[in-house]
Amino acid sequence: MTQSPRYTPLVQSLPATVPFVGPETAERASGHHFTARLGANENTFGPSPRAIAAMAAAAQDVWMYGDPENHDLRGALAAHHGVTPDHIVVGEGIDGLLGYLVRLVVEPGDAVVTSDGAYPTFNFHVAGFGGLLHKEPYIGNHEDPEALLARAAEVQPKLLYVANPDNPMGSHHPGTVIADMAARLPEGVLMVLDEAYIDLAPPGTEARIDADDPRVIRFRTFSKGYGMAGLRVGYAIAAPGLVSAFNKVRNHFGMGRIAQAGALAALADQDWLAHVRNEVATSRDRLTVIAHDNGLTPLPSATNFVTIDCGANGDFARAVVRELAARGIFIRMPFVAPHDRCIRVSCGPAALMDKFAAALPKALAAARG
Amino acid sequence: MTQSPRYTPLVQSLPATVPFVGPETAERASGHHFTARLGANENTFGPSPRAIAAMAAAAQDVWMYGDPENHDLRGALAAHHGVTPDHIVVGEGIDGLLGYLVRLVVEPGDAVVTSDGAYPTFNFHVAGFGGLLHKEPYIGNHEDPEALLARAAEVQPKLLYVANPDNPMGSHHPGTVIADMAARLPEGVLMVLDEAYIDLAPPGTEARIDADDPRVIRFRTFSKGYGMAGLRVGYAIAAPGLVSAFNKVRNHFGMGRIAQAGALAALADQDWLAHVRNEVATSRDRLTVIAHDNGLTPLPSATNFVTIDCGANGDFARAVVRELAARGIFIRMPFVAPHDRCIRVSCGPAALMDKFAAALPKALAAARG
Repeated sequence: MTQSPRYTPLVQSLPATVPFVGPETAERASGHHFTARLGANENTFGPSPRAIAAMAAAAQDVWMYGDPENHDLRGALAAHHGVTPDHIVVGEGIDGLLGYLVRLVVEPGDAVVTSDGAYPTFNFHVAGFGGLLHKEPYIGNHEDPEALLARAAEVQPKLLYVANPDNPMGSHHPGTVIADMAARLPEGVLMVLDEAYIDLAPPGTEARIDADDPRVIRFRTFSKGYGMAGLRVGYAIAAPGLVSAFNKVRNHFGMGRIAQAGALAALADQDWLAHVRNEVATSRDRLTVIAHDNGLTPLPSATNFVTIDCGANGDFARAVVRELAARGIFIRMPFVAPHDRCIRVSCGPAALMDKFAAALPKALAAARG
Repeated sequence: MTQSPRYTPLVQSLPATVPFVGPETAERASGHHFTARLGANENTFGPSPRAIAAMAAAAQDVWMYGDPENHDLRGALAAHHGVTPDHIVVGEGIDGLLGYLVRLVVEPGDAVVTSDGAYPTFNFHVAGFGGLLHKEPYIGNHEDPEALLARAAEVQPKLLYVANPDNPMGSHHPGTVIADMAARLPEGVLMVLDEAYIDLAPPGTEARIDADDPRVIRFRTFSKGYGMAGLRVGYAIAAPGLVSAFNKVRNHFGMGRIAQAGALAALADQDWLAHVRNEVATSRDRLTVIAHDNGLTPLPSATNFVTIDCGANGDFARAVVRELAARGIFIRMPFVAPHDRCIRVSCGPAALMDKFAAALPKALAAARG
């Protein structure tokens, strides 16, 4: 009998492994309960109390579908960014939007350029639509604009991915460097500018790019600075032609009622975002001190995490991650060498930092032992 | 200069029109405020109070990503249905899951069979991946199992879509008819059994199909009986091989924290579902009376809406929809002839039924005038 279902050849070629291990999965697998959840770059300072109230109120109305046009939220985002609602598409986190974007442009065999060790979910989508990833090494701890542009000139990719600030290294380029990249893109290359962490970056990190420029789409999220990773609201700013192309493929009713209400309230509370920014800065300083106290090298961070060079190889860093997990501390680390000499620790309130500070020396000793 | 971005040829061929007009869009376009929202088959009786409380509580924790494995929810659903968690995939509403399924199997040019006038979002996804839709007419007000099977034998589709109960007609087949269809599927055809409304259908509507049968995938939702359309939680029951194939393409962190918590609490409150079932039955009876009072013909319904034959053509029914909207009553109607002789009205509490009953005679008069 014919195999049912008859998957596409592309799907048959995709790996069956699941690269996305959540902290709950790690807890179940290890039997350890995490008392400090510092691995997913979640914002442990939480969302605006006004957003929490708005979500709780919206729960009463959740029998209604959310507005498929995301009218009010797009309007508020447009006002916030000084663009029109036609420049804004809202979707199920940056992850969901990246999936739609790749689907819009990538066919099997199409070239895509990114950095080796950059955001794996983007790579997941590219592979999932049959694109061919060309990965450029970082230059030190930074994505390498010149190398990315040179590779783009060589392989004429449909997409060129760059994150600013970068995950997993926490580094950033001044906005002028990114704007210069955009100006020098080869013809027909769309720059995917992932600004998930921009709300936590130093002044000047945001690139000045005309929202009508058809060569760039920039992605933002309510998951990081706004502290609502579990709400799943991201958005992109792009030229209206590209924004409307998303309507050809997106899940039109995909943004729920609570999600839209929470995002709208969070956006309106910029004081809370400023508060979070301060708390994150304090926590970054604390993580820097903790790293130094343990003879490790913290990297400068423009995000809500600090990447810490453990001074050895990937096996050692993996052992540190494992030993921290055994002590109830959930962190993660970069996937590829040479970055996998590092661990990556999310910011958090003092009590969480205390737990990390207490566990790290023991974890390091165990990893060395 | 080369056009940027370079869309795929398939995407270029897709229509730019947006077929998904939400009630908010209709309100904005018409300037009418809807005082009765009876067009989207939302459950106006609302979700379980326990689910509302769970969602409000989860709003506090929304800084955390939801578990990408949906472990607890899949476990509870498995227990509820007497299957294993490996038989369950959870996703962003049935809409989102249908998109993933189509992507898994449909390549440009692949045949897909459905009924003419059945769920348009399924068609949207099939067209969006380049599939060719073969549409069989309904037989009367029912999807036509024999015709669907004959067409499947002819065109060897990758997918055969059938909804039981049906939207937009509200009709249903006994579960035995659906199980018989499944047993007689041509080789290599996957039956997409959309059971969005099953929680509101009469006993015996649910088909007995082995969850390990690789020829069938059945879709369920928290949007209808459970009253949480704006939460975006659907799931599918299928053989483990097919369930795990979703992991190759799905948005792994797509199910948010509030969504998982709300669905879990709703599932645990089966008393509330029974309450809703009673309320819906009462409202169906009321809509039947209202239709008769106005000289119209209500169709029997196995859902939370009643489709009402207005006894004329599509132009007349469209006028009725328009005239009701002008009076603050939002309803919808089937898209295609001959079903577009009908209007479709969602069930609701007595106060909403009163509003509909008051507005309908005037709307009919205006439509006739």
